[in-house]
Amino acid sequence: MAKVLEPQIKDGQLLKIGQRVPKLDAWDKVQGRTQYIHDVKLPRMLYGKILWSKYAHAKIVSIDTTKAEKLPGVRAVITGYNTPEIRVGFIKDNPVLKKDKVRQYRDEVAAVAADTAEIAAEAVKLIDVVYEELPGVFDPEEAMQEGAPLIHEEKGSNVLKLPWKMLCGDVEEGRKKADFIVEENYTLPFVTHCCLGTSGCIAQFHANGNLTVYSPTQIRYLAQKDFQDAMKALGLKGKRVQVIQTAIGGGFGSKLDTYPFEFITILLAHYTGRPVKLVYTREEEFFASPGRQPVRAKISQGCTKEGKLTFRDVDMILDNGAYTSWGATTPSVMMMPISSLYQVENIRYVAKCVHTNNIYSTAMRGYGNPQATFAIESQIDTLAEKAGIDPWEFRMLNRNKPGEITPQRFEIGSCGMEECLVAVKEKLQWDEKRGKGNGRGVGISSLIHVGGGARIYKSDGTGTILKLDDYGKVTVLTSASDMGQGSDTVLAQIVAEELGVEIEDVEVIMKDTNLEIWDAGAHASRSTFVGGNSALYAARKAKEEILEFAAGMLKEPKESLYLRDRMVYSRNNAEVSMALDKLLRAIHFRTNGRQVVVSEFYDPPTVMLDREMKGNFSAAYTYGVHGVEVEVDQETGHIKILKYVIAMDVGRALNPMAVEGQLEGGCAQGLGYSLMEELQLDKGKVLNGNFLDYKILTFPDMPNIESVIVETIDEKGPFGAKGIGEPPLVGSAPAIANAVWDALGIRIRDLPITPERIVAALEAKKGS
Amino acid sequence: MAKVLEPQIKDGQLLKIGQRVPKLDAWDKVQGRTQYIHDVKLPRMLYGKILWSKYAHAKIVSIDTTKAEKLPGVRAVITGYNTPEIRVGFIKDNPVLKKDKVRQYRDEVAAVAADTAEIAAEAVKLIDVVYEELPGVFDPEEAMQEGAPLIHEEKGSNVLKLPWKMLCGDVEEGRKKADFIVEENYTLPFVTHCCLGTSGCIAQFHANGNLTVYSPTQIRYLAQKDFQDAMKALGLKGKRVQVIQTAIGGGFGSKLDTYPFEFITILLAHYTGRPVKLVYTREEEFFASPGRQPVRAKISQGCTKEGKLTFRDVDMILDNGAYTSWGATTPSVMMMPISSLYQVENIRYVAKCVHTNNIYSTAMRGYGNPQATFAIESQIDTLAEKAGIDPWEFRMLNRNKPGEITPQRFEIGSCGMEECLVAVKEKLQWDEKRGKGNGRGVGISSLIHVGGGARIYKSDGTGTILKLDDYGKVTVLTSASDMGQGSDTVLAQIVAEELGVEIEDVEVIMKDTNLEIWDAGAHASRSTFVGGNSALYAARKAKEEILEFAAGMLKEPKESLYLRDRMVYSRNNAEVSMALDKLLRAIHFRTNGRQVVVSEFYDPPTVMLDREMKGNFSAAYTYGVHGVEVEVDQETGHIKILKYVIAMDVGRALNPMAVEGQLEGGCAQGLGYSLMEELQLDKGKVLNGNFLDYKILTFPDMPNIESVIVETIDEKGPFGAKGIGEPPLVGSAPAIANAVWDALGIRIRDLPITPERIVAALEAKKGS
Repeated sequence: MAKVLEPQIKDGQLLKIGQRVPKLDAWDKVQGRTQYIHDVKLPRMLYGKILWSKYAHAKIVSIDTTKAEKLPGVRAVITGYNTPEIRVGFIKDNPVLKKDKVRQYRDEVAAVAADTAEIAAEAVKLIDVVYEELPGVFDPEEAMQEGAPLIHEEKGSNVLKLPWKMLCGDVEEGRKKADFIVEENYTLPFVTHCCLGTSGCIAQFHANGNLTVYSPTQIRYLAQKDFQDAMKALGLKGKRVQVIQTAIGGGFGSKLDTYPFEFITILLAHYTGRPVKLVYTREEEFFASPGRQPVRAKISQGCTKEGKLTFRDVDMILDNGAYTSWGATTPSVMMMPISSLYQVENIRYVAKCVHTNNIYSTAMRGYGNPQATFAIESQIDTLAEKAGIDPWEFRMLNRNKPGEITPQRFEIGSCGMEECLVAVKEKLQWDEKRGKGNGRGVGISSLIHVGGGARIYKSDGTGTILKLDDYGKVTVLTSASDMGQGSDTVLAQIVAEELGVEIEDVEVIMKDTNLEIWDAGAHASRSTFVGGNSALYAARKAKEEILEFAAGMLKEPKESLYLRDRMVYSRNNAEVSMALDKLLRAIHFRTNGRQVVVSEFYDPPTVMLDREMKGNFSAAYTYGVHGVEVEVDQETGHIKILKYVIAMDVGRALNPMAVEGQLEGGCAQGLGYSLMEELQLDKGKVLNGNFLDYKILTFPDMPNIESVIVETIDEKGPFGAKGIGEPPLVGSAPAIANAVWDALGIRIRDLPITPERIVAALEAKKGS
Repeated sequence: MAKVLEPQIKDGQLLKIGQRVPKLDAWDKVQGRTQYIHDVKLPRMLYGKILWSKYAHAKIVSIDTTKAEKLPGVRAVITGYNTPEIRVGFIKDNPVLKKDKVRQYRDEVAAVAADTAEIAAEAVKLIDVVYEELPGVFDPEEAMQEGAPLIHEEKGSNVLKLPWKMLCGDVEEGRKKADFIVEENYTLPFVTHCCLGTSGCIAQFHANGNLTVYSPTQIRYLAQKDFQDAMKALGLKGKRVQVIQTAIGGGFGSKLDTYPFEFITILLAHYTGRPVKLVYTREEEFFASPGRQPVRAKISQGCTKEGKLTFRDVDMILDNGAYTSWGATTPSVMMMPISSLYQVENIRYVAKCVHTNNIYSTAMRGYGNPQATFAIESQIDTLAEKAGIDPWEFRMLNRNKPGEITPQRFEIGSCGMEECLVAVKEKLQWDEKRGKGNGRGVGISSLIHVGGGARIYKSDGTGTILKLDDYGKVTVLTSASDMGQGSDTVLAQIVAEELGVEIEDVEVIMKDTNLEIWDAGAHASRSTFVGGNSALYAARKAKEEILEFAAGMLKEPKESLYLRDRMVYSRNNAEVSMALDKLLRAIHFRTNGRQVVVSEFYDPPTVMLDREMKGNFSAAYTYGVHGVEVEVDQETGHIKILKYVIAMDVGRALNPMAVEGQLEGGCAQGLGYSLMEELQLDKGKVLNGNFLDYKILTFPDMPNIESVIVETIDEKGPFGAKGIGEPPLVGSAPAIANAVWDALGIRIRDLPITPERIVAALEAKKGS
């Protein structure tokens, strides 16, 4: 069982950590007080609108903006021809306003700023663009072929030059050692984040040339850096860029990059000299905010007759779309389950990202992990079946263990994989329910994910400035980003615990690059771990300062003092105590007085992946197991979820209610990915870009999720916690596919597992 | 001449200090972007309105709110009878909603919160109050008499129990030594601040019971403390109060206290559960925001036949109005010129603050100093005349000098009084213009004021949090309050100078008790001195940290390195240099990296006045001289200002444009006080509460002000600067009264010096 270490708990029982604390922003949200980008209004603000491409691939022959410019209320009409070139994206291959040619339907051809959103919408319709259509390519494998239309002529190929290759051990040797080998193909569709708050921003220039951008971004410091490019293009190099983060109405990775619309808004603000707001409609959100990249995976694994994995060999092709955002880097995270889910020595992995004239993709919760895990974990069942071993036993046999170093050189610290497997087996009544067939079946799937940040950038740090006032109230300026996951609440709990105050005494402020210290952004499930440690260490510094002073004042050794219940107490002497606020006023109101203010920058002890894509890039790893019991209607192909269990090693559940929220929310998104979600494109054009045609899970669709929280008290995490924002999504699809196999003996290798696919598979099975 | 010390300048010439920098908030103000309290809107916000007393003094027999409550859109109607008692003011003698009786026309009898301001205004009219009128008293001397109506029965007397008494040396001895003695009476009227932004605030309770108040207060931390009283009354003790300072549309001391309207707004927010905004109309601003207290002064001074002052003896009576705000403490500042303007050993001062049924007073620019200086400096001329000495020579003879310790134990450091006297004499052509009579004359007046804070509270400190980002941009979180005086701009200059960056690189943030460290508020001309030192020392800490790292990186001794032009340079080696932003990124992006963040709390080396009202309560003192040439129309009594000179010892002019702004603005307010302003009350009721009847100087009235900036480079001030917010107002009235004497031989001892008073004095002179 998991080792329980409590290195940071010194004053007895935890009071705030482990409590079910409702999210601090919940009341504001339900009362309509939260200010989303949609609600922010600045004096003299204009409204921006983009003219999108009419073709998936075409030459731009001419753009005539005369009519639009004449419309009363129009303040600026911009195109690639009357603005300096700014290129965005991971490899800067995306000009924010297109000249010469368009490469996808979401290409930005022109934009307008006007007095009202209505006038702006009217004005873009008045812009005349003459195109000359070009042949397009919409399938990544076709795009790889000789003679395929080139999306970016200057690149010479549609295949991206990115180093997605990993070799560990010797796969050929592993094949030789295998008694059983399975090779299969899996495909995963284009899905999108479906944030309830559509994308948008406001840009405003100040008289001194400095720029402020209001944005619900997940990465305000990286966005700040990106926006510097616009400043350079506008001849404003050296000026200051401030990013103010408005409340995020859903992120899930979609706001992990900057996009042309933000730069267009900056350009419009620059040319009009007024603040400009640009917010997507729901229709725009569907086709012009990037989703999760479609993947085709070829995977083979082998094992000995005892069931030990001997090798894993994976080839992938990703549809990169027309431009390159963070989506193209998801293979770096796919490597994680490929290298480190179960003990397997010999690994080969090659992935190609291929340009097409489809709309492009970005990061999405799990960041490639769900795609890779679907292939691996579906095949584990196939392989176990071939080897004649119970799939649960097979997993136990190959499970990861605390303290191991994986072939990719991940240093696994705490690891609750065994506990998760045992818990799910029990809750699912695995032994009783399994192998009955006839439309009912059970399936499981394990997962690994980073839980201690992920060094994808030179710094993976988060800053905290913490101050206490005369009343014992605490302000935490954190650079972590709460996008709904509840990190603010958890930071308040951590600080309240450490300083012995109430959670309501702690105000967590996160919003403004001018205010807070740098941060790498909300991604890789890192906010609680990295931001939490940053807040914890800041609180500890403040505590040291307070106890140091208290020791002198109360004439007690500092080591004997502790903070609790808004008081300072002595362990040695029950008579000695003092109210914290009184103590803080004593620190303040004296000669050379001060208020207690500290700052902390916590950067986890990790390294970036080296050229071989190896190295310990996270300070902790989380493990989990999904388990599901399904009943499949053999007539309609409809899948009913009878039971859903998720067991997650979270290190420590700082706020069990928030953990459950993440587990249930992740499963909801995972179930959508597994069963119904797919952004359908016809020659690059989105066909189902609305909530009527693109189905996500709603309350009636949602099964009860049974959450099992496994605590392994990670040595490096704040109070032992690990990040768990993404993993609850990762295991759904393979668990369901495995349950369907158990129910009917059909193997669905293409997501989503729709009734149509079930019926087709059943018919194919009958036919064979 | 003044000693010029430059202890803090080490890297050669100053680049940002001494520059004429336009105020950083100027563009936002002229472009209409500044958010005053009037502009702030919160979701679901209600509007509050107060019902004022109908009498100056009356029993409240009954209040019937039934009709008001029934008006659609009304959300709450509160009175002293359905709310807990909260008392405000310097001695907490002012219940925010009056029960049993009213004591002035501005008494708050009831209040309403409604969906719109119009409904709220309508609703207060529907409240029926039955009063029983009581005899009132409106003259402080009558109020002191036996049998006068008592304003607060429980106090037993209308005279406040405040210790306004100071004795230095032996006045009787001083009288004996005097060859010439003059005794006179002076009176000063009720005037008001005339802020262009009327008073107002917004209160909002959060779901956890914490309170946020938006307010254009000058004292957000002291206001925060006051608002805790409301929390206690509401059973919310221990909850957090946050004060967010909105842009201040004029302060001048009027926003140095909290007032019933703010607590009423808090009560309305509490009972409705919604944010409530309450903003005064212009009419309310005139009668319901407190002004400067009327004073009656009896003063006598004596001198030897050589012209050396031998004693000063002053009695004052202040009309305190119905309640006690900071106005009642202005005698503590009146003591400053009485004890320390000119060298005089033997001093006696007694002041009485007396309750009347007039509306009450608070702090106003100069804080009692203008009243005392009018009496002293008018009489200096009278005394000099009696002694047969030129008034300028008389002043030179008795002038204060650097390094002296005054009878009140003020430690005068830098002192440019001599330079100011010399400069004004020359600019005014004193010798040529003086003594000509026949309607033209010249007059001068000296002044002293605190220039290094004033310890009226246990702490006189200001906090700064300063951070630098990856681009060399600086954020300064200051707790100083910029209410239009330009302190933000000066803080940016100080920090830019010290860190070798551009002023546009520095963002000064001051607004929120949750964000910044404690501060004693914007008063006593302290923001540049105390806030400036706080910012300077913070910047110096940051510089140390940066140079420390740079020394290691550039392999140069730290002492040889300096920051300038966004670069680090070496004095030893011209080849060595590095861009600041690059250096900061090197500090950040490495193992154990960090961003540079520092905090500072600067509390000046001063003491509170002791029981004898003595002690060095400011870290520096400013001196100045006003000089004026007038032409008086002997028919109409109209005074034309032919020339106006002000010479001020400012320590160092950090921003000469801002200094001139203060000098000219102060003179404008001083001229209004001298010549035209008076809030006229009839039995406690304001008669001229609007800008048609209450005259302030407008552009056509304004003479050209010739400013002479004397720099004495104070050892303790930031880059040598001293505070000069208030003193430019102090010397106007006596300089004009003295010029009128020189012009016509009439002595006006009652402000304002209106044409009517001139004509009456001329007639009296003729008659005698």
